[in-house]
Amino acid sequence: MATPIIECVANCSEGRNIETIHALAHAINTVKDVSLLDQHRDFDHHRCVLTFAGSSEGVAQAALELVKTSTRLIDMCQHSGQHPRIGATDVLPFIPLDDATMSQCVDLAKSVGKRIGDELEIPVFLYEEACDQSYRKSLEAIRRGGLPDLASRMESDPAWLPDFGPEHPHPTAGAIAVGARHPLIAYNIVLNTSNLAIAQAIAKVIRASSGGLPAVKALGLELKTQGLVQVSMNLTNYRNTSLHVVFEKVKEEAEQRGVSIKGSELVGLIPQEAATQAAAYDLKCDSLDSDHILESRLRHYQKDNLD
Amino acid sequence: MATPIIECVANCSEGRNIETIHALAHAINTVKDVSLLDQHRDFDHHRCVLTFAGSSEGVAQAALELVKTSTRLIDMCQHSGQHPRIGATDVLPFIPLDDATMSQCVDLAKSVGKRIGDELEIPVFLYEEACDQSYRKSLEAIRRGGLPDLASRMESDPAWLPDFGPEHPHPTAGAIAVGARHPLIAYNIVLNTSNLAIAQAIAKVIRASSGGLPAVKALGLELKTQGLVQVSMNLTNYRNTSLHVVFEKVKEEAEQRGVSIKGSELVGLIPQEAATQAAAYDLKCDSLDSDHILESRLRHYQKDNLD
Repeated sequence: MATPIIECVANCSEGRNIETIHALAHAINTVKDVSLLDQHRDFDHHRCVLTFAGSSEGVAQAALELVKTSTRLIDMCQHSGQHPRIGATDVLPFIPLDDATMSQCVDLAKSVGKRIGDELEIPVFLYEEACDQSYRKSLEAIRRGGLPDLASRMESDPAWLPDFGPEHPHPTAGAIAVGARHPLIAYNIVLNTSNLAIAQAIAKVIRASSGGLPAVKALGLELKTQGLVQVSMNLTNYRNTSLHVVFEKVKEEAEQRGVSIKGSELVGLIPQEAATQAAAYDLKCDSLDSDHILESRLRHYQKDNLD
Repeated sequence: MATPIIECVANCSEGRNIETIHALAHAINTVKDVSLLDQHRDFDHHRCVLTFAGSSEGVAQAALELVKTSTRLIDMCQHSGQHPRIGATDVLPFIPLDDATMSQCVDLAKSVGKRIGDELEIPVFLYEEACDQSYRKSLEAIRRGGLPDLASRMESDPAWLPDFGPEHPHPTAGAIAVGARHPLIAYNIVLNTSNLAIAQAIAKVIRASSGGLPAVKALGLELKTQGLVQVSMNLTNYRNTSLHVVFEKVKEEAEQRGVSIKGSELVGLIPQEAATQAAAYDLKCDSLDSDHILESRLRHYQKDNLD
């Protein structure tokens, strides 16, 4: 496989209706040369995350099919959930893997975004590497206050007109953030408490934007069905701040508040290096790195023999 | 790469002379369709471990070239080291990866073993899956007492005639154990003490053969140059007993003896699943498994698209 591989990690606003989630996955699976690598759903977030990869053309096609299906099946007027969101397909980032480049992903975000705007009549906001305007480059800026707040900014402020598509939210599908970004790790730590204020306080301490850990975004969220709360995070550069550093810091902050950690969970996939890093730390094993992972070494061997 | 891949983890009795180790690595690298995946050396063990992989024919050829080179450059009469051993190339196991089978590896061990015996005149003892006689199936049985002890058993006991080659050890290269086996993890934990009795006592507690942890072999060894000792282990089934279970147990046993752990080290490569397992344990993260490692998922995708 010498062609560049592009990954898409689509976040859709459905975490409860299994049939709908199956239909979303099916929309991706029908496209040739694309593989659905992972699906994750969360009842409390009322959200699912579909990770797929393939050629640039394949991934573009699968992304469009997914947005079509989510527009048909998900009604944002009926939606409620713990996670901030602006649309049925809420976030659609393209990520370069292997030999792919960020510039290919930026081009892809723009061409898929244009088709979503033109053909499906959903307003599209480009984000991260696909966006040139600093004030709306981050997902947090676009999603601030959720769909109602975005809708009123679109109405009242020309700086918030979408990059593609109509000037008003789609009546049921809302809006979509389409972007290009580096790989990130979506990682949640569940606390043994139902006190949301504790999760929010810890999130504030650890997030980079309030002077916490570098390359960490964090929110405190309720898990109503479990009677617990979680610190929900994105680690945007695990080489900068790794899983175990985040885990130890959240554990320490929780203990200071008299709370223990119930467990942690990944949303979607993580790079092998990130898991290896965490194992090496706990085993005090300096020699445990990607160069000592059999599959990683074999992959290089196989690449050499295919090229 | 749809052809079966076979791995060989050759252990040679040279951990000090860098030129010799380079020559051994070079012998492998000259063979087409074979890749040297890792090299590890240990001064105190006076031993190096060369991990390579490729097609059955390629790996057979590289193994022979390696044994030829070690026979030319290593003299067992001059050798001393902490690790038990019987020959210049001491252990030569073949391990099935990907689509390869154990039966292919058994055949390979026998054909390479026969050529080593016939062409290089070094006695060969088949071991593990390549050996049908239970009393000499394990490496420990063959290596008991090192080369001098094996030599006297060969002399006095017909049950200890080699599978291939001459009835007496080679004057400089000694003997070789050639086998077929499942993947294992060679893993050492270094203790903050120079007291060898402590490492030996812990090794005895944890090794499977004395009722310790399943699928664990363990020795206490001195690291003279560091003034420390280590528990040197093979984990023959990490799904049964994983890295973190071993680490925690050795830590506990060491602490009971008033000793802390300095660190741990891998010899050669480990399967990605084993590293992931250790990370998941420490992060209390049930969802962290091989199915959530990006490269692992992509590998399946790429295989599907190549087949």
